[in-house]
Amino acid sequence: MDRILIEGGTVLTMTGRADVFADGVVLVEDGRIAYAGPREGAPAAPEARRIDAAGKIVMPGIVNTHCHAGTTLIRGYGDDLRLMEWLETRVWPAEAKMTAEDVYWGTALAAYEMLSGGITTFLDMYFPADPVARAIQDTGIRGIVARGIIAVGGPSEALSRLEESREAFHRWNGKAGGRITFMVGPHAPYTCPPDTLLACAELADELGIGIHIHLSETAGEVEEARRQWGKTPIRHVYDLGLMKGRRVVAAHCVHADDDDIAILAETGTGVCHCPVSNLKLASGRTPVSKMRRRGVAVGFGTDGASSENMLHILGSEMRIGAIQAKELEGDPALFTSYDALSMATIEAARVLGMEAEIGSLEPGKRADIILIDTERPHLTPNHDIFALVAYSALPSDVAMTMVDGRIVYENGQLTQADGKEILARVREAAARVVQA
Amino acid sequence: MDRILIEGGTVLTMTGRADVFADGVVLVEDGRIAYAGPREGAPAAPEARRIDAAGKIVMPGIVNTHCHAGTTLIRGYGDDLRLMEWLETRVWPAEAKMTAEDVYWGTALAAYEMLSGGITTFLDMYFPADPVARAIQDTGIRGIVARGIIAVGGPSEALSRLEESREAFHRWNGKAGGRITFMVGPHAPYTCPPDTLLACAELADELGIGIHIHLSETAGEVEEARRQWGKTPIRHVYDLGLMKGRRVVAAHCVHADDDDIAILAETGTGVCHCPVSNLKLASGRTPVSKMRRRGVAVGFGTDGASSENMLHILGSEMRIGAIQAKELEGDPALFTSYDALSMATIEAARVLGMEAEIGSLEPGKRADIILIDTERPHLTPNHDIFALVAYSALPSDVAMTMVDGRIVYENGQLTQADGKEILARVREAAARVVQA
Repeated sequence: MDRILIEGGTVLTMTGRADVFADGVVLVEDGRIAYAGPREGAPAAPEARRIDAAGKIVMPGIVNTHCHAGTTLIRGYGDDLRLMEWLETRVWPAEAKMTAEDVYWGTALAAYEMLSGGITTFLDMYFPADPVARAIQDTGIRGIVARGIIAVGGPSEALSRLEESREAFHRWNGKAGGRITFMVGPHAPYTCPPDTLLACAELADELGIGIHIHLSETAGEVEEARRQWGKTPIRHVYDLGLMKGRRVVAAHCVHADDDDIAILAETGTGVCHCPVSNLKLASGRTPVSKMRRRGVAVGFGTDGASSENMLHILGSEMRIGAIQAKELEGDPALFTSYDALSMATIEAARVLGMEAEIGSLEPGKRADIILIDTERPHLTPNHDIFALVAYSALPSDVAMTMVDGRIVYENGQLTQADGKEILARVREAAARVVQA
Repeated sequence: MDRILIEGGTVLTMTGRADVFADGVVLVEDGRIAYAGPREGAPAAPEARRIDAAGKIVMPGIVNTHCHAGTTLIRGYGDDLRLMEWLETRVWPAEAKMTAEDVYWGTALAAYEMLSGGITTFLDMYFPADPVARAIQDTGIRGIVARGIIAVGGPSEALSRLEESREAFHRWNGKAGGRITFMVGPHAPYTCPPDTLLACAELADELGIGIHIHLSETAGEVEEARRQWGKTPIRHVYDLGLMKGRRVVAAHCVHADDDDIAILAETGTGVCHCPVSNLKLASGRTPVSKMRRRGVAVGFGTDGASSENMLHILGSEMRIGAIQAKELEGDPALFTSYDALSMATIEAARVLGMEAEIGSLEPGKRADIILIDTERPHLTPNHDIFALVAYSALPSDVAMTMVDGRIVYENGQLTQADGKEILARVREAAARVVQA
């Protein structure tokens, strides 16, 4: 049996505000957590490999509920343009030039970046599915692949995407020790007509997986939905039956109204909150606290690097999302640092329907664990450990990232892939895809 | 003559969007910039010490227009409380226990943190003045000391603070090679009655320095001012004559209305924009773009670590302020990454009235220079160098910080002070000041 004992750090299990264990212990056995808590009561594990976590925080890996990893290739390309000009003159022409190999390197870069900032699981919507799965396999991160499905080219386009999703599922699902899983990925109601959405639901049922979709990201989208169907995008999708008896993970929901929020709560639909992307694209401010008060699970998502610019939740969404929630409610006390940490870990796992496997340090769960080094000026002093992580910590404070009990990032380096090669390949591909 | 040649990096002089020099050169002579630009045309300097900046961005040091550095001691202490409860049960009792020695270490920690993230100049309002000046001297940062003046204890309290400000000025102004300068620091109109504000103006004229003050931070403050004086805090201060013929640096101005903005523009009053603090305390959203369109200089400020939690502008105010400005205008194109960089450098220098000395890389200016290492996953690829710095860079990407031509931070370490000792002393002091 492979045993690892992480000892001497401050352990945050994310099972409750009170569960803070200074000089705590986490025991990992064969990739799963066997124990997490105080030193007293920890099982003796004399033969275990030891990791000294003194001066460090030990917490669950961060979960990124919404990403388009391959867009790292066009990070910073056409920032500060208005949405349609940006899509038409930059994003779409560049994406048209991307090969599967390019998407592989772009996704590998995203995984490198995410692991370096403590993200251990991400839900990705991009295309094609194959290189995304391969990058997950090679870098050591955990990922859910939702092949983006768009039917603007007509029904045959949608059909071929669905078929590709099915094939990729059969080729990759459960591979890499279970690190690779799938969802069906209809892009949005405005790019997928009702028959495509229903075909996606059928495929999800056939494969026994969930659905990932963008809903109500912009005011314009909601307006157009009301014009076309006489209802909001969320109500539209609900009335089509998409959310019944199926896990749906809805990105954004910035403009969800009270009726929409009731639907999300009733159907157990999880929401991916991407505050940085929503601010940067001037999409609006999501009523996060209202959703959570009504029982909707909300997790942080980075969105793609072409709108967020960095795929980090620590020091980014966690921090900005928290202070924005305070401002939006006009009350600094209604959203706490613990709320922010939850939305980055256990609540995000709940959004993805993976809370039995990841999101907290509890016996039986996957050993997705990060260490945060607190020997930094901006992490001194420590009056409140949750405030320290939510408001002061930076991605660069992550000293070690472990997925399934395997150290995949340490001391600034990936252990499973060649970080320098990834940077070089991405530079090469990025220069090519933006060429006129 | 002491000469340093920084070569091979991408030089951003911050003298215009077009001034980007790949494989550029910066020549420093006796603490001042002698040349910054393309390699062709650079003076030969065979005897200069050489700094290899290949793979790095070379840009002006970041300017923090508003800080309460000593509050690092209570970073994260009572976050998520409402303002008055936080002040009454946490901040004020802790501050009452702080010794001058504590404030020295708290300010030294702030300087360490700021230098580690590329901030080379800060305007500080705290107390007492002496340890603040001493910490500036010892760490190598550049600082403007505004001893906080509050007259809630009556006129004699104000008088003794004014006298302390005068004495500190005569003891420290221009010391440390000119790195230490002063402003008079009346805290706010709601803590300083008109006679105190006028006495501050007199002292500023006597010493030939500017005034730093908080104005219109919260809606409640504006409401109370209207009740008490029948006008906004900004109009009140203007009508008292405070802004006439004197440099005033106004922190926050979140609730400045059109008349207020006209006053700020007319008087050349600089504004310190602290978006993170304002969000976290739910104070509101500053009309930054409106102010700048009307000719008001606006620079970023961190505010104190008890409301911002990290004293970093790179990856924090620069990024959050930019995306918030986009959202506030409902248009992602109206505020650009170059605007964000300006507000962190040359425009911030203008706010402080120091644009002849710092804020850009131009011959004759002080050599306050930082290097940003781009060999990072989140800084790859590079499609737009300003977007890269404004939206993707983290404080931890700063590889070197130079003030007055002297390297004061490099490879994670201060060069002039003992970083480890600072962390240890702050932990000790922080534990003491929060004891019941």
